Amino acid sequence: MKQLLLIGIGPGNPRQITLEAIDGLNRAQVFFVLDKGAVKDELLQLRKNILERYIDQPGYRLVQVDDPLRDGAASDYVGAVQDWHQQRAALYASLIENELADGECGAFLLWGEPTLYDSTLRILDLVQARGVSLALEVIPGISSVQALAAGHRIALNRIGEPLTVLPGRRLAEQPRIDNLVVMLDGQCAFAALDDPQLHIYWGAYLGTADQILIAGPLLEVKAQILAAREQARARKGWIMDTYLLRRPL
Amino acid sequence: MKQLLLIGIGPGNPRQITLEAIDGLNRAQVFFVLDKGAVKDELLQLRKNILERYIDQPGYRLVQVDDPLRDGAASDYVGAVQDWHQQRAALYASLIENELADGECGAFLLWGEPTLYDSTLRILDLVQARGVSLALEVIPGISSVQALAAGHRIALNRIGEPLTVLPGRRLAEQPRIDNLVVMLDGQCAFAALDDPQLHIYWGAYLGTADQILIAGPLLEVKAQILAAREQARARKGWIMDTYLLRRPL
Ligand SMILES: C[S@@+](CC[C@H](N)C(=O)[O-])C[C@H]1O[C@@H](n2cnc3c(N)ncnc32)[C@H](O)[C@@H]1O
Ligand SMILES: C[S@@+](CC[C@H](N)C(=O)[O-])C[C@H]1O[C@@H](n2cnc3c(N)ncnc32)[C@H](O)[C@@H]1O
Repeated sequence: MKQLLLIGIGPGNPRQITLEAIDGLNRAQVFFVLDKGAVKDELLQLRKNILERYIDQPGYRLVQVDDPLRDGAASDYVGAVQDWHQQRAALYASLIENELADGECGAFLLWGEPTLYDSTLRILDLVQARGVSLALEVIPGISSVQALAAGHRIALNRIGEPLTVLPGRRLAEQPRIDNLVVMLDGQCAFAALDDPQLHIYWGAYLGTADQILIAGPLLEVKAQILAAREQARARKGWIMDTYLLRRPL
Repeated sequence: MKQLLLIGIGPGNPRQITLEAIDGLNRAQVFFVLDKGAVKDELLQLRKNILERYIDQPGYRLVQVDDPLRDGAASDYVGAVQDWHQQRAALYASLIENELADGECGAFLLWGEPTLYDSTLRILDLVQARGVSLALEVIPGISSVQALAAGHRIALNRIGEPLTVLPGRRLAEQPRIDNLVVMLDGQCAFAALDDPQLHIYWGAYLGTADQILIAGPLLEVKAQILAAREQARARKGWIMDTYLLRRPL
């Protein structure tokens, strides 16, 4: 039997890791790192720092793989993601086959919370469906959503109200915005909203030294956020941002 | 100036605490603990264990207060909660006045994530509105929602879909259940659902030695969950449970 840990390592601040995650780092012999595009080098380095900082015994192995980039232009979004998951499942299956011996423990270091908008668990379910037998364990991590709320010192929900978290592409169809957190929004879907009641709490590179926070009435701070976002993205080559939208009572 | 930390200490497993939270524990001189009802003794003991385990320097003070119980029967739910928040704000203001000296750092130890269905931040905003000047800091913690997903080894959302978290009393009005996490559901709102498509992933006392996990098609496991819940509640005198509902594609 091979064991695989999905370890949530928080949004970027190396102190925002749990003791359970550190225990997990010390149980694994092999670490799988898959990144894509411009974020690759910097995020790889951050992960290496985490391994160096928290692992007591040297001798662990790092397996780094270039991730097949997804067809971002596909019209069938879910279908394109599913195809890409199948490709990744084949890749992961061969990695596990070749790099992890029976009885060993491998780990994926995942940003934020491993079960929130992260496909690793789903892909490993596909790997298991291909007949690879695995003992999977999930170790929660602080999500960027939590780092956003902490940074702005705001509650994610108001009294008795639902909280919804969604990808940017689903923002336009929301009938009502009470407490809405948007992730995965490369297109700045917030810029198309024009309800003068809305407040936004925006954050980029949360938990890292580059963290940016901007909050206020959406129509008043929209241009400031777009400018800060564009400037940071140009400077670093990539950006990770998320935001909460709320209509005051 | 007085400093106040809102420290998320995770859902119950003492290894599910972050290094940032441990840093916070070691910065504070005074800890405020407010609990109510039957959970009080056991949760107080769990918090005392956390303080003993993670604080390096002895000499911290623990301020324990009985929380005014809320009027659970009030017909105006939000109004009743707001009244109770005002009462609590008066209580907190006097605690901070009397128990925390200028220049000192106090902390609230909060279960799970401090910004998710926890009123402490909102109450401290009211305390500030009363003219008490405070430097507030929020330190995220692993939420019971994350412990639920990790325990069942499931993703909280499916590809590209929204995730909604809500209190039990709002479940009945949901038009569509894709990925729905229910908290604060003393009335077992799930029991009233009869859609044969729904799957439930239920967890109680997550992260503790008493953890219970049950999953399956809702109509098949409903009775089992209700029985397990009632039995555990009778035995321990209190229960904390949460669940995810999902309709398969
Ligand atoms: C694939 S999702 C992964 C989310 C991750 N599992 C989590 O819990 O934060 C990536 C999205 O998360 C958000 N994100 C992740 N890390 C972030 C950070 N450090 N600062 C701001 N947003 C971040 C962004 O919205 C980004 O598009
Ligand atoms: C007042 S809310 C606080 C939630 C907390 N801030 C969090 O992030 O988990 C209390 C609700 O959280 C859920 N909950 C908290 N701790 C739990 C645990 N250990 N196991 C299961 N559910 C829990 C239950 O639904 C409970 O009614």
